[in-house]
Amino acid sequence: MKDKISLVGGGLVGSMLSILLAKKGYPVEVFEARPDMRKSNSYAGRSINLAMSHRGWKAIEMAGIKEKIDEVAIPMYGRMIHDMEGNQTFQPYSIHNDAIYSVSRSGLNQALMQIAEDLGVDFHFENKCIGADLDSNELTFQLSDGSQKKVKTNISIGTDGAASELRYAMQRKGRFNFRQDFIEHGYKEISIPANADGSFKLEKNALHIWPRKDFMLIALANPEGNFTCTLFFDMEGPLSFESVNTREKAKDFFEKYFPNIPELAPDYLDQYENNPVGILGIVRCAPWNYKKTLLLGDASHAIVPFYGQGMNSGFEDCTALLEMMEEIGEDWNTLIPEIAKKRKPNADAIADLALYNFIEMRDKTADPRFILQKKMEGEIQKRHPEKWIPLYSMVSFSHIPYAEAWRIGQAHNEFMQEFLDLPNIENRWNDADVVELIDQKLANTIF
Amino acid sequence: MKDKISLVGGGLVGSMLSILLAKKGYPVEVFEARPDMRKSNSYAGRSINLAMSHRGWKAIEMAGIKEKIDEVAIPMYGRMIHDMEGNQTFQPYSIHNDAIYSVSRSGLNQALMQIAEDLGVDFHFENKCIGADLDSNELTFQLSDGSQKKVKTNISIGTDGAASELRYAMQRKGRFNFRQDFIEHGYKEISIPANADGSFKLEKNALHIWPRKDFMLIALANPEGNFTCTLFFDMEGPLSFESVNTREKAKDFFEKYFPNIPELAPDYLDQYENNPVGILGIVRCAPWNYKKTLLLGDASHAIVPFYGQGMNSGFEDCTALLEMMEEIGEDWNTLIPEIAKKRKPNADAIADLALYNFIEMRDKTADPRFILQKKMEGEIQKRHPEKWIPLYSMVSFSHIPYAEAWRIGQAHNEFMQEFLDLPNIENRWNDADVVELIDQKLANTIF
Repeated sequence: MKDKISLVGGGLVGSMLSILLAKKGYPVEVFEARPDMRKSNSYAGRSINLAMSHRGWKAIEMAGIKEKIDEVAIPMYGRMIHDMEGNQTFQPYSIHNDAIYSVSRSGLNQALMQIAEDLGVDFHFENKCIGADLDSNELTFQLSDGSQKKVKTNISIGTDGAASELRYAMQRKGRFNFRQDFIEHGYKEISIPANADGSFKLEKNALHIWPRKDFMLIALANPEGNFTCTLFFDMEGPLSFESVNTREKAKDFFEKYFPNIPELAPDYLDQYENNPVGILGIVRCAPWNYKKTLLLGDASHAIVPFYGQGMNSGFEDCTALLEMMEEIGEDWNTLIPEIAKKRKPNADAIADLALYNFIEMRDKTADPRFILQKKMEGEIQKRHPEKWIPLYSMVSFSHIPYAEAWRIGQAHNEFMQEFLDLPNIENRWNDADVVELIDQKLANTIF
Repeated sequence: MKDKISLVGGGLVGSMLSILLAKKGYPVEVFEARPDMRKSNSYAGRSINLAMSHRGWKAIEMAGIKEKIDEVAIPMYGRMIHDMEGNQTFQPYSIHNDAIYSVSRSGLNQALMQIAEDLGVDFHFENKCIGADLDSNELTFQLSDGSQKKVKTNISIGTDGAASELRYAMQRKGRFNFRQDFIEHGYKEISIPANADGSFKLEKNALHIWPRKDFMLIALANPEGNFTCTLFFDMEGPLSFESVNTREKAKDFFEKYFPNIPELAPDYLDQYENNPVGILGIVRCAPWNYKKTLLLGDASHAIVPFYGQGMNSGFEDCTALLEMMEEIGEDWNTLIPEIAKKRKPNADAIADLALYNFIEMRDKTADPRFILQKKMEGEIQKRHPEKWIPLYSMVSFSHIPYAEAWRIGQAHNEFMQEFLDLPNIENRWNDADVVELIDQKLANTIF
């Protein structure tokens, strides 16, 4: 009989991990603070949809639900940029027609829970973890009637998100490095309804962005024909959620910066007034483990959502753990510290990348130099597909470790600067002499 | 009747603050997890003595116990550097004969508690804070018999140190930025006994340092004639507490690096074997306040001990709060966020300074270029005492805000580099031409 594994948190990462561990023959139980979302569909204060990319799909395949998710996932082949005049420009994500996929958070979570239960995973809903003795591996839960129960376990894994209770317990142990940082931006969701005939009001196979430097609006399609928009906006300051605090100010703001929204979402002012503002933070810690307890997903590395890699990186934690079990065996005294050590630099890298992509999305997607650079890099990639994989593709369409992707991406950027500085480059960028210069340098460069 | 103020934590900062607030007419209660240290003198896991400097003395004077502390404080007028051959060199702290003072932590704390009680402050010992509802200002304590009690208050101030329970409560509120970082070094204390006749074995009016680059030993005198040494040493690695883990290895290590210790402390191997290793961390957070709760001292800004400013900066929190009460009045809805905002940049600066001083102490005090720079700066200061106050003096012998001191100190350092680069400067540093060059530049410089 294998050791019992207790997962604290039945969100996306907890549900996914419970499946993969159950498939390996472990008795798995999952404690989840919320009620069973398959029965009561309450809003959990998290985003409605998310972008699944390669790392996420890998776990989905291992869990055996690729077909089921394929049915409802909407591919997005690039960014649709909306300028201030209402013009739309499409920027593909890759030259290979790769896509990221808009997926419903709750739909995915429910599907994972169902498969887990079918595999024998024991779910305990409305079991809110309120403390843990990490030395004796005893977890304390508060039940819906206010009573408490204690559970002894062999191995506990905290998949309980950014406000992880297991991490709070670790924080009180010696030499646990930890930080939580909130960024200046918050977010608010606004829905664009489907047309009367159920069709989409915008191109559904694109991630829509209204980049406005200090803030931005994005939109992802849902299978029902509607779009979920998210406004990322300063919490405080001259132009912020704090200052745009009346219907009149919101009307002026949207009409000026997002001129097509009033038509696309006629009730946008009601939504702006009524929908909550979410906050955005980053969690970093080290080590991710203490004795027989391990933190994975947001519990150890919550990131900002701008690369669409929160779930993907958490799912990669799960697949990496399973791969390591194949490689080094299933002695959890070794496995726990080793997986923590292996994943940490990659989590740090995706945390940085996610912040970087915010700047790219809100600012650079509207910058001619950046657009030119992307065009030039696309051509380099076409000529040297083995040698040049763009950063976005490494992150979203490969399994290259995030830390490695980030390092190479920075080297690419440095490589490009001298060519972007050439006089009249905007007209000469694909001329034979420039192409030769680039290819010469590339031949002498190892990334 | 003024609002009741509840302090969580009766250490140095809590006891000091209780006195100052009681003197302003507030009903003050202090909840302390440990037993009354005036009755049972248990080791609390903290350093035995500490270095009091100007900022600390200011609070001591405001509390009205200057004479009492003067009696037992031992002035240290500079650093006594012990090299590998056993030679000792004295480096004064200032040209004005300023001193920092070795003071017993427990003696000071007991004196502060006694004065506070005499002023009517209500101490509750063995009341361990285990939770707080910061919205209703209800604190939960665990008593020595295991039972719990809840206390409603008007204003609560967390002076509960680096592992502050009130800060843990704040951490779960929205947008609270927080980090805790442990450095690679730990520490272990070793005592050098007095001579048989009660006299000191080393110069008592100096802070002794054995700088060895990657580690160091320091020693401060106690009124009883003994010295408390502290070894700051890597926790892990080739030369570390982890690797020097037998009497034999410790003997080799001390004989090689601290050759006079075996004679000064004949039982040093027993002490090395038996004394615990302490860990060293830094706590930063923002904001320091939530509604009617405020964090002060280590609770909001624990720092490493290398500038001897942990207590001093905490005491300055207290005097700054009292000064602000004079300036803007006693509306705590204003006072709490304002004092938090005012102190934060200074706490950040002293956190950086304390790390910087570790490098200075363990490394630079043995570096000829650094020693020359200090000599030259001393001469500049003599010629221009108004314009040039060295960094160490600004931090230890002035009330210049830490952030300002740190900025000026960095500017000083930059100012000096070109002169230190002059050929043969070690012999010419006080020649008329060099002095003129320096004074010319100084005349054109505003720090």
